[in-house]
Amino acid sequence: MSRKFNFSSGPAALPEPVLRRAQAALWDLDGSGIGILEHSHRGKAFRAVLERTTAAIREVAGIGDDFVVLFVTAGATHHFTMVPHNFLREGETADFCHSGLWTTKAMGEARRFGKVHVACTSEPAFDAVPENPQYSAAPRYVHYTSNETVYGTQWATPPADPPAPLVCDASSDIFSRPLALADHGLIFAGAQKNLGPSGITLVIASKAFLAARHPGLPPLADYQTYVDEGSMYNTPNTFGIYMIGEVVSWIREQGGLAALGERNARKAAVLYDFLDQSRVWRAHARPGSRSNMNVTFRGATAELEATLVARAEQRGLSGLPGHRAVGGLRASIYNAFPEEGVHRLVELLDEVEREHH
Amino acid sequence: MSRKFNFSSGPAALPEPVLRRAQAALWDLDGSGIGILEHSHRGKAFRAVLERTTAAIREVAGIGDDFVVLFVTAGATHHFTMVPHNFLREGETADFCHSGLWTTKAMGEARRFGKVHVACTSEPAFDAVPENPQYSAAPRYVHYTSNETVYGTQWATPPADPPAPLVCDASSDIFSRPLALADHGLIFAGAQKNLGPSGITLVIASKAFLAARHPGLPPLADYQTYVDEGSMYNTPNTFGIYMIGEVVSWIREQGGLAALGERNARKAAVLYDFLDQSRVWRAHARPGSRSNMNVTFRGATAELEATLVARAEQRGLSGLPGHRAVGGLRASIYNAFPEEGVHRLVELLDEVEREHH
Repeated sequence: MSRKFNFSSGPAALPEPVLRRAQAALWDLDGSGIGILEHSHRGKAFRAVLERTTAAIREVAGIGDDFVVLFVTAGATHHFTMVPHNFLREGETADFCHSGLWTTKAMGEARRFGKVHVACTSEPAFDAVPENPQYSAAPRYVHYTSNETVYGTQWATPPADPPAPLVCDASSDIFSRPLALADHGLIFAGAQKNLGPSGITLVIASKAFLAARHPGLPPLADYQTYVDEGSMYNTPNTFGIYMIGEVVSWIREQGGLAALGERNARKAAVLYDFLDQSRVWRAHARPGSRSNMNVTFRGATAELEATLVARAEQRGLSGLPGHRAVGGLRASIYNAFPEEGVHRLVELLDEVEREHH
Repeated sequence: MSRKFNFSSGPAALPEPVLRRAQAALWDLDGSGIGILEHSHRGKAFRAVLERTTAAIREVAGIGDDFVVLFVTAGATHHFTMVPHNFLREGETADFCHSGLWTTKAMGEARRFGKVHVACTSEPAFDAVPENPQYSAAPRYVHYTSNETVYGTQWATPPADPPAPLVCDASSDIFSRPLALADHGLIFAGAQKNLGPSGITLVIASKAFLAARHPGLPPLADYQTYVDEGSMYNTPNTFGIYMIGEVVSWIREQGGLAALGERNARKAAVLYDFLDQSRVWRAHARPGSRSNMNVTFRGATAELEATLVARAEQRGLSGLPGHRAVGGLRASIYNAFPEEGVHRLVELLDEVEREHH
């Protein structure tokens, strides 16, 4: 059985060499005679996995000693609550750059703990990242979503000159290009798009920002616990940490984040260039805000979209329907998605368009 | 490379047929052309995995419609906070049957939310499950740990005649014998001992008990969210759910929980019988409270223990040192641990004893 081209928005396609290595490690990790799922998290073999994963992340992303690298057993949605729980109290304000579904959810959780100020917004179309932020007087932090999976927009560069540390939900574009760390207090990312399996988040946090958190939280709700205990206050998602390590090693083998960033831009441009000249297919996001990870687009009619999805499935192109909240079509083409799949999609879009005319 | 006998207390040995199936599924789940790690959690293939996993759990454990089966992306420690967050408020009391390290941690978290009453305790030796509970006037629930991984004790039957629903931390003996559901409000279990990989917990909760929770919590902290959203409020640990399904199918193939319970009792008896006649090795737990999952024991001297551990490693018997909080030795022999490994350990214990005399 040949594998499909998997356009899923997450969980999503992983590098095939990593899957092959993981198959072997399920049976026997690193010649230890015990599989990765079965190793004690306190044992030497898993300690080595945790250390090499952390070291690879630091090296590939260029993370210095002023930042910590943490693994939290949870999805990114958990951090929508955990961030304000740590950093926001009654009377305090968090600023948001509002770009779609994910900032809506994050603001909803932040309101449980303090005040929310929308510094900028691209509602209701969300076809671009928001512009010209008007910050509040003294925010505790400024939250933004670096890539909006649902609407297919992506910040080319982080919000400029923030009056407080940036908190970035980088779930859908982490390590898809060089990591912008300047001005950031905390970056969190669910692993299931560019890093590994679901059920684990990578957190990169500035030590100075963590020092400004509100103390006294339950241990697993307090980011500092993960620092103090090396992400091992309790049994972590050991397989998730192993997989992230393998994926980041693969990123290094591909030439690192700069090389991947160029490849991802090229891959996405193949699609956007086709959409921009098409008479029946139209990209949702505006130039300048277009995501290299999630290319969202519409057909001229619902029939065209349905024809495309049905024929794509027949041809082994899977996962093209858009998010259930907005409909339309979406091609998620993360790091591991092969360029060949993009060309196959363009051929099919062209074929359906020609039949229509 | 042959695989070792893995006495790790968790993550722990998994059934080898399940590991073989998982290796195949990493590349291609159920002939879908996409691996289990890469499937959208909203897609048909993963929905089928979630449904068959839930159905297998209900069938194998005999869980009726008055209980829900939920998956929470977290370890069991997370529930030490989540349970009182849902069920305990200022002025309210939770009763605890205090059997060791895990109830200590759970009580610490419960005290953040309300009052803690120790109904019975086996401190300081913790060499038995506690007896003769003296309950408080009107507890919200009664918390106990069905199997104490660190001290090697296990409740033969749940606390009798509780004045409120039982909350059971079943992390280290879930599905190792028939499930006692009567009197229980909520059972939680980290998967990494008898069910699958770390980073996911199985929760079995009575609908009536959930209805009595305190509302208004953040969605991922509220057990009812997992009911309302079918454990899919956000992306769950999809691989963990897949693995639990495969392990529970394997349990069914072994003849179910009654058959496994008998096998586990027989396996543990081989070790306890040897320890009880030994002149240099001694079981920690008292008869009647002994765990069939974690057999804790000591040598007459520290040298004997060190000799045993070193020689065991040479012979491919791994993970025998006791928990770092108590020292000594511990043989964790969960469902998937093969009986042959128990005989190999007894031979080695006997060999070291004979050399000593």
